[in-house]
Parts: sequence; C-alpha cells; structure tokens
Amino acid sequence: CESTSSHGTSWTVVSPITFTYTVTQTHDLLNPNNDTLLMGHIRDPERLEAFRSNTKPIKRFVVMDETVYNLYGSQVTDYLEARNVSYRILPLPTTEENKSMDTVLKILEELHRFGIARRTEPVIAIGGGVCLDIVGLAASLYRRRTPYIRVPTTLLSYIDASVGAKTGVNFADCKNKLGTYIAPVAAFLDRAFIQSLPRRHISNGLAEMLKMALMKHKGLFELLETKGRFLLDSKFQSTTGLRGKADPASVSTRLAIETMLEELAPNLWEDDLDRLVDFGHLISPELEMKVLPCLLHGEAVNIDMAYMVYVSCERGLLTEVEKLRIINCMLRLELPVWHQDFTFALLQKALSDRLQHSGGLVRMPLPTGLGRAIFNDTCDNTLYSAYEKWCDELSSGSKE
Amino acid sequence: CESTSSHGTSWTVVSPITFTYTVTQTHDLLNPNNDTLLMGHIRDPERLEAFRSNTKPIKRFVVMDETVYNLYGSQVTDYLEARNVSYRILPLPTTEENKSMDTVLKILEELHRFGIARRTEPVIAIGGGVCLDIVGLAASLYRRRTPYIRVPTTLLSYIDASVGAKTGVNFADCKNKLGTYIAPVAAFLDRAFIQSLPRRHISNGLAEMLKMALMKHKGLFELLETKGRFLLDSKFQSTTGLRGKADPASVSTRLAIETMLEELAPNLWEDDLDRLVDFGHLISPELEMKVLPCLLHGEAVNIDMAYMVYVSCERGLLTEVEKLRIINCMLRLELPVWHQDFTFALLQKALSDRLQHSGGLVRMPLPTGLGRAIFNDTCDNTLYSAYEKWCDELSSGSKE
Repeated sequence: CESTSSHGTSWTVVSPITFTYTVTQTHDLLNPNNDTLLMGHIRDPERLEAFRSNTKPIKRFVVMDETVYNLYGSQVTDYLEARNVSYRILPLPTTEENKSMDTVLKILEELHRFGIARRTEPVIAIGGGVCLDIVGLAASLYRRRTPYIRVPTTLLSYIDASVGAKTGVNFADCKNKLGTYIAPVAAFLDRAFIQSLPRRHISNGLAEMLKMALMKHKGLFELLETKGRFLLDSKFQSTTGLRGKADPASVSTRLAIETMLEELAPNLWEDDLDRLVDFGHLISPELEMKVLPCLLHGEAVNIDMAYMVYVSCERGLLTEVEKLRIINCMLRLELPVWHQDFTFALLQKALSDRLQHSGGLVRMPLPTGLGRAIFNDTCDNTLYSAYEKWCDELSSGSKE
Repeated sequence: CESTSSHGTSWTVVSPITFTYTVTQTHDLLNPNNDTLLMGHIRDPERLEAFRSNTKPIKRFVVMDETVYNLYGSQVTDYLEARNVSYRILPLPTTEENKSMDTVLKILEELHRFGIARRTEPVIAIGGGVCLDIVGLAASLYRRRTPYIRVPTTLLSYIDASVGAKTGVNFADCKNKLGTYIAPVAAFLDRAFIQSLPRRHISNGLAEMLKMALMKHKGLFELLETKGRFLLDSKFQSTTGLRGKADPASVSTRLAIETMLEELAPNLWEDDLDRLVDFGHLISPELEMKVLPCLLHGEAVNIDMAYMVYVSCERGLLTEVEKLRIINCMLRLELPVWHQDFTFALLQKALSDRLQHSGGLVRMPLPTGLGRAIFNDTCDNTLYSAYEKWCDELSSGSKE
C-alpha cells in the first residue's frame, strides 16, 4: 500500500507470519518403540505416513546438556541406533556461566560440519532451560531459521522454557540480553527425566508453577498448598498413568502448561507489555546475575514473588491471611523467601531499567486474592514499607 | 487446541505475528529540516504528533560503513547535532570479508554501552547491503528484537537489501549462513547517495534491477535496454524531481522496488520455495565466495543470470533473439556475462546443495520470454549443453 507524505513516497508492507508448534506430554520418550522424538513434530497425517514408510535413514543433530548426557546419553544413543538414525550427539556444559554466544557458535560449527537439511531435519535439544535456550538460538540463526525440538529434562524447563518461543544467551553480564523469539516446531515432555533431578531442582521448578497458580489459577494454588510437599517427595513420578485425574503430578503439570500457553500464545513476541508471566521476573534477573551461581532461576523468582506478595498486601490487594498462606506454601516447597542481596537499591535499579524498556510504566503484575492479578505501578513509599515489613518478617528464616 | 494421539496429549499452538514496515523514497535525507531519519518510521499520526512536540532529546545509535562515513560522516554529525540528538556513530569496515559474527558482537558491545530504549529508539544503519545485513542481525538479537532502520547508500542495497526482511553474516566460508528474517521498521531511500558510487557499483546494482525486469516486468527491461547506459552515466541523479514520470531514474527505481515488494511481502520468511527473486542466486553465492573479493554481488548474480538465459534458450523458453537482447543489455550495463571460475563442477555442487535444502526439487526460476518466468527443474544434459554454448559464445568477451 502506497502513500505520499512530507517524508516522500512510502510503501507500507504488512506481512503476517504464523508460528505453529506442538507441545506434547508423552512417556517412554526414549523407548525405541516410541517414534515421538523423531516424528512427533509432523502434524500433517499424510506427511507423517509418508515419513513413516520412508526407508531412507533419518538424520538428526542432538545437543545434550553434559550432566544429562552422563545420565541418559547411552539411552539416547541406543534409541537412535535402534531406529537406524544417522546422528551426532554433542554434549555441552550448559550452565548459566556458559550461556554465551561462544557456546552458540560452537554448536553452529558442529552443526555445519555434520550437515542437515534445513527444512526437514530438526535439531534436537535435550536438557534444562539453559540448554534449550542456547540450542534454540543456534537453530534460529542457522540458515536464518532451522526447526528445532525441545526435550526438557528439568521440572522448570518442562513447564516454562518448553512452552514459549524465547531463545537466548547472556551478554555483557546481563541475563538473556541476546536472543530471538522463534518457537520450536515441537516440545516433547516426559516426566520420567524429572526423577533424576536433585530435590532442590524440583523446588526450583515448583516456583514457576506457583507463579502461574498465583496469577491465574486458584485450584492450582490449592493443589500446591496441599500436595506440593508430596510432589517434591515423589519427584513428580506417578503410578496412576499419564492422564489420571486424581494424580497431582499429572494435574499440576497439565494446569501449569495450559495456563502458561494461554498467556504466551497470543503474545508470542511480547508486543503486549502486560504479561502475567513476568510475575517474579522484575527484580529476580538482577538478583540472579548478581549472586551467580548461588541461586537457581526459580529460587530468585520465588524471592521476587515473596516480596511482591508483601507489596500486594501493603496495597490491600491481599489479606494478611492470604499472604501467610502464600509464604507458607513457598516454605513447604522448600523455596527461599528472602535474600540479603535483594537490597532496596537493587530493587530500584531493576525497576528503573524496566521503566526504560516498557514505555514509561512498570506495569507490575501483582496478585490480588489467590489466583488472580492486576497490573499496576506502585509508588516508592509503598515499595519501601513493603520492603521493610518483608525484611522484618522473613529475613530470619524463622517461619520454617 | 488439544488432541490425543499415539504420541501423547498435545497442544497445538497457532500464533500469528504481523510485521509492518515502511519503505520510503525521500530526498534531502541529511538536511536538518527533514525529520524523516528520526521520525519517518512512526506511522501512527497521533504518535508522530506527540513525538514532534516532545522536547526531550532523541537518542540514536548509528552504524555507518567506514567508506560512507568518510564521505557523509560530517553531514550525519551535523544533522544529529542540529536536531539536538544524543547520539553515537560507529563507523565500521563492512566488507564481505568482515561480514561475520565478530562484527555483530562488536556492534552489540557498543550498542549496549551506549544504551537505548528497546522499543522507541531504533538503531540506524547507513551503508551498503553488507552494512545493512550486519546491523540488522545485531538489532534482531539485542533484547530479542530491537527496531532498526535501513539507509542504503548503494544502488544495490537501495533496490534490494532495503526492501526485504533478511539479515545475516557469513559463516564457515558460506555466504549469509547465519541470520534472521526480521524486517526493519523502516527503510529510507535517498538517491543522492548513489552519486558518490564508483561506476562499477552502479552496474552492480543494475544487475538486481535487471533480475526483477527479466522475472516480472517487460517495461522495466525495455527501459534498461534503452536507458540503462544513461542511468549508468548519470548515476541515477535526475533533475526532473523525485516523481517525474519521464525520468528513468525515478521510474526504474520505483518499478524495481514495487516488483520486489510484490514478491517479498507475501513470503517474508521464505516458506514458499518458489521465489522469483532467487533468479541469479542459485550458483552465484558459491562463485562469489570462491573468488572473493574479485566479483561484486551483482556481478556474480549477473554471470549466473547470463548462464540461466542460455539454459532457458536451450529449453526453448527464450528465442535466440530474446537471448541476444538480454546479453547485449547486460553488456551495455557493463556487467560480466561469463567467468572462468563458474565451472560445470561448481554449478553441480551449488545445485546439489540447493536440492538438499529445497525439498528435493531445484525449482529453478527461468525466464520465459521477456518479463515472465517459470519454475522448473532441468536435466543435467540440458544444463551441460547450455554450459558449452555459453562458454563458446561468451568466454572470449568478444560480444562487447
């Protein structure tokens, strides 16, 4: 469409792009009889049929977190061998400290050497959120976009990184400063991986689940309140099968994913600044990078959420009873609710950074009641009195 | 949307993203009275009004090609000073040899140090296609997407790089192997820059213009046939004003942009493999990288096109007379029509690479008549006999 203005003759181009991707809860993902890992991303039944009857060997480039490789590497190898796949597995230490463009380039060099068909041979990432983010960025860049598949092995990435479109690495000491919004073609979720996680990492994932509960789903909050400790003890392994309606592991992961998808799908590129999923993510990136590697992501998020609960309470959005229920739930999930490096100065810096990048308003998501939230800006006085009360009540850790 | 299959319980996410960008032909872009460079990307009249009446100084990060900086650096500086902009200009040698992730990271470091508001302070790139591609990639990555503006200073980038969404750098000796499909918020085109180009670089741009003519627009081809040499001599500077209907510089650039936009806008992410704009780009990337820095991009493209014209002729899609008209037009535009490093082996390698990445079919765009094209695969025998005839007739350069 053409127009003429004081600036000259202009053409305005409006070009729609549609992302389509699949999030699949499955089990026995590494059982050679299960073809999900190789074919689960193909949505068109005809194409799937053609692919299944094709006798040409499949080619796959797989990046695995090093720790995950030590635990599951031989199973993945056996799987790919059994299915006659031409493969290369690249194990990498995908820690927050290695979440850098250097690691991305290393993956790209190996990927380029191995060689894949850019449209039909998706890169597979198996690991936690850091691994999925790094590999996602590498795939986004390769030939301007190569499909990739996410296989989360932590509870946190199971309900968080797998569901959205974000990829990224840290840069100049800032968390996820470089990246893209390119969704995977598919995410395959198998809770079996979670059983090998240390207990602390289960709590870490429960923090993001609690986030969605507080923002959107009272039922999920009540489930975490009553069954959270059981989920932590049982590491999300259930015996009643994948879809059991009474199984807290099934129900809670399902609700977490559904509430997350509801929020992310219509706003995949974050053009809308009002994001419930930002709860717990206003101050925590600053805190997490500052104390690296002391706090896990979900722990930093939980500390941020605990403080925000005090802000909500101070503003009358939560009652004292609701506040206590939330804090007690956090403690039962074995999550930290306070941290000495979360100073008021750090809080102010983080909020002013956000202000600069969100159009002049902080638009802080705040819980109001249980399972609902509003977006609002809060004056410094309220932030400070909430901060004082938060330190008073929680700094000693005596609630436990 | 949820479904259950043998793979498990799946949610299919369909998430639409819309790119909107403006391509503006303007003049006097660096005249301080012209606010296009700072505000031309704002499409909403209300936002534009608010922005114009805002007294807060504007902040802009500008990357310029080094050669362009030597020619126009002081004019850009004067412009930004006169408009009270808080700015940083980063001049960089943006050659094909420096088109690398290293250069992207260098830009990102400077950008990060300078600091910009990620949604409202677009990065400005001023230079040729390589500069626009590199800066586009840096901006795409910064905070997962920072808006950027393209100001092309070569004829080639004026009608080509500015119009589309591609960004990229070379990697592992392969042209544009890494990149994104992220459109700029705006491209501002001022033909005044073209007058400082060496004559060879005008020919270079004319090659891409000829490409669109051969694929889509007989009128543009005839214009290049009759006025091409005049355009080359006058370096696209016209005296009859920007929109003169009789001015070949106006008419040809306008037609080149319109035909290009028609092709690119509905297929911004190149999901459709049938792309007329790929004409001249099947063998040339391989050739260009091989002889670097001997051939300019448009020169390599033209050699590829000249060969393809022989293929079309061999297949009966073009008459001998049409073939001669095209080759003679190329020669009058002072473009190479043959190269000794364009061997049959190189051709076979390039086509087999393409085969691997385009779903098993080469889908070669071939001119049929003047200003029209088809997509087709051609057998090796025909490719070879066309190659022999091409070498026979053009290797001596005796046509000139």
